[in-house]
Amino acid sequence: MFFADCLNVNDAGHLTIGGADTLALAEAFGTPVYVVDETQVRKNMRAYKRALDTYYGGHGLPLYASKAFSCKEICRIASEEGLGLDVVSAGELYTALQAGFNPEKIYFHGNNKTLFELEYALRERVGQVVVDNITELETLDALAAKTGQKQKILLRIKPGIDAHTHDFIRTGQIDSKFGFALETGEAFAAARRAAQTQSLELVGVHCHIGSQIFETEPFALAAALFLDFLEEVQKQLGLVLPQMNLGGGIGIHYDEDDDALPYAAHCKAIAEVIDTQCAQRGLPRPFLLLEPGRSIPGPAGITLYTVGAVKEIPHVRTYVTVDGGMGDNPRYILYGAKYTILCANRAGDARTQTVTVAGRYCESGDLIQEFTKLQPVAPGDVLAVLATGAYNYSMGMRYNRVPAPPVVMITDGKPRVIIKGETLEDVARLDV
Amino acid sequence: MFFADCLNVNDAGHLTIGGADTLALAEAFGTPVYVVDETQVRKNMRAYKRALDTYYGGHGLPLYASKAFSCKEICRIASEEGLGLDVVSAGELYTALQAGFNPEKIYFHGNNKTLFELEYALRERVGQVVVDNITELETLDALAAKTGQKQKILLRIKPGIDAHTHDFIRTGQIDSKFGFALETGEAFAAARRAAQTQSLELVGVHCHIGSQIFETEPFALAAALFLDFLEEVQKQLGLVLPQMNLGGGIGIHYDEDDDALPYAAHCKAIAEVIDTQCAQRGLPRPFLLLEPGRSIPGPAGITLYTVGAVKEIPHVRTYVTVDGGMGDNPRYILYGAKYTILCANRAGDARTQTVTVAGRYCESGDLIQEFTKLQPVAPGDVLAVLATGAYNYSMGMRYNRVPAPPVVMITDGKPRVIIKGETLEDVARLDV
Repeated sequence: MFFADCLNVNDAGHLTIGGADTLALAEAFGTPVYVVDETQVRKNMRAYKRALDTYYGGHGLPLYASKAFSCKEICRIASEEGLGLDVVSAGELYTALQAGFNPEKIYFHGNNKTLFELEYALRERVGQVVVDNITELETLDALAAKTGQKQKILLRIKPGIDAHTHDFIRTGQIDSKFGFALETGEAFAAARRAAQTQSLELVGVHCHIGSQIFETEPFALAAALFLDFLEEVQKQLGLVLPQMNLGGGIGIHYDEDDDALPYAAHCKAIAEVIDTQCAQRGLPRPFLLLEPGRSIPGPAGITLYTVGAVKEIPHVRTYVTVDGGMGDNPRYILYGAKYTILCANRAGDARTQTVTVAGRYCESGDLIQEFTKLQPVAPGDVLAVLATGAYNYSMGMRYNRVPAPPVVMITDGKPRVIIKGETLEDVARLDV
Repeated sequence: MFFADCLNVNDAGHLTIGGADTLALAEAFGTPVYVVDETQVRKNMRAYKRALDTYYGGHGLPLYASKAFSCKEICRIASEEGLGLDVVSAGELYTALQAGFNPEKIYFHGNNKTLFELEYALRERVGQVVVDNITELETLDALAAKTGQKQKILLRIKPGIDAHTHDFIRTGQIDSKFGFALETGEAFAAARRAAQTQSLELVGVHCHIGSQIFETEPFALAAALFLDFLEEVQKQLGLVLPQMNLGGGIGIHYDEDDDALPYAAHCKAIAEVIDTQCAQRGLPRPFLLLEPGRSIPGPAGITLYTVGAVKEIPHVRTYVTVDGGMGDNPRYILYGAKYTILCANRAGDARTQTVTVAGRYCESGDLIQEFTKLQPVAPGDVLAVLATGAYNYSMGMRYNRVPAPPVVMITDGKPRVIIKGETLEDVARLDV
């Protein structure tokens, strides 16, 4: 029911995370509050590292996709665990650098990096820039020439794979704002152009075929398509590209219907495809990069809310309103995302009621989940929404000027604030 | 084509707002940048005030719905223009109070005000609390009793009107998280309960029947239903409720298909319904409150972006990418909202191309508008998205840790920053 090892129920019937009682956390930090278990985060990071070690001889690196949840502390943890980092903006890069992350192991993504961002990446000696389009390629080459640097780049490529998932978060097809298309020859033309630049060193290819993917096949297919491409680049341009980056997109459990992809089996399947095909084609085995985001902090995090009112509309539905909503978790209003919700103070009880959990924002669409199972609840009860560790804090909205909640990390059962909550002063701090 | 008096094209072919050249603004403040014309904002506020004066003998007050765009400066302007204020959170209340707004003229809304918010409202002597549910009624009564205050309240009522608009922003029906249902007797029971409290004074009724409504009829219908209710309350409970608050929801121009509601005709129609029916029923004419939000800053604001890349996908579509997106304007990804977009440096030219304007955020759904008309553009051009003065800054997302853009106000042709843009330091300022 809980999908994550870090969640349990104690003798008082309270939900625990990393051994900490969620009722005590709600009391100590107020609600809403995000809670993330450090042990679970590290375990998830290690699973990727171990899988690459076991099945690909360690000739690869997982890059934590920090857009899932970017803050200094998770960058420090990723660094300690030996991961690389995927950043998509100057803000995420700044966060990583402030946390002391080694810039060599950073990959800078984005479909429209600004001039400032490209200059910033060069100045900070970011290891790899993943170039999205020809304008960016030319701009980066010119900037690097000015500073006399040789910048390593990968090309973002659309391999044309349609990994079945929600429309909004599908990114592999040719009709996408991201990257160069493989099938039209655009990607090859970009590789040829990159090879001609003075100040860029093309070291690999990257793709991101979607989000919340529950099969290994699309990744294996992408790997095979990339090997075709690497072979063509080697033959036609005489260039051996040492890196293959298959991006992220691995699905996690949000509710009972989700069957999370076992990381190890996933890496094994991809490694086998690459190993076999490289041997057949006489290609060197590329350094393999994976970009897990959601699957690292996602299952390790929960959000705690307090119930305000329970509004039963006869013959219609029952609304349970909480003190947060779309501002701290916009995924339901954005995607109709699924979540599992529990009454934290009666977590062991059966979820016998069907309710709609609504937020506190002035918008009818501000719901956390509709027609979901929940224990019978009353005003003052604490609700826990599971698997909110990714794309919740990071996607937070300023709507209604509600202060952003704090993020508390549990380490060996003890809580500590890793992102401070906003105050009322904070929400108006930039107003003149 | 521009829908707002404040927009024009100068001799250089540049779009102007309030007389200021948008290219000069983009140069001076960088992009993305929000720009709002003060004259237009004041004009829109005055239109409501004048309409109530002309058609309802001044026996009413427009309340600016600050959730549309809350900051200190717009609160100061609303105060100078003699408007009241609708706030929906402690953050919006704090903003208003910091701006010196008279608390007597503030209405505190929300379907789930927290205990802290109710205490804060009482402490700051907020004139009216619009009570959403019985739990809140009881809680507020108990809190007011403790401090020895008598708190004026209105009841938020669902009149059961379905004003045709987008599902997400429809709020009048019985199946809503907001308010008391009229037709089930819930609203009357709430009035009866309110009349029995020690520390609450029931002064009126409130409804909000939707957003982006382009007809007057639903408002007139709501007024008629409310008069039935007031009559019943007067007969059965012996209570005369002096205030009727018909909320907001008036549509504005986002593109050519929108036919914005003329405020004056709108107020006239509502006033006539109330006058006629009050005379017929022998009821005192209520003090009429309207809550315009979007229609005040909405048409007065634009967002300026710089084009990064133009990506033509043969036989598919052309993506024009800009240096902002869902973080500064989440309305397309949320609602598929319509916008009119211009090339600011060739604003007088015909919009002969059909393109998709995409944002810079790492999400395929991060688009500002799909298949929209635009002048031919190239990297470096400045785009203006019109009518972004409401529900853009206020709904901003922290996604990808992209700093929030500044808001610049034009006063008599001169720009001044009214909300500072975030810095890189700002985005990580709460990280421990």
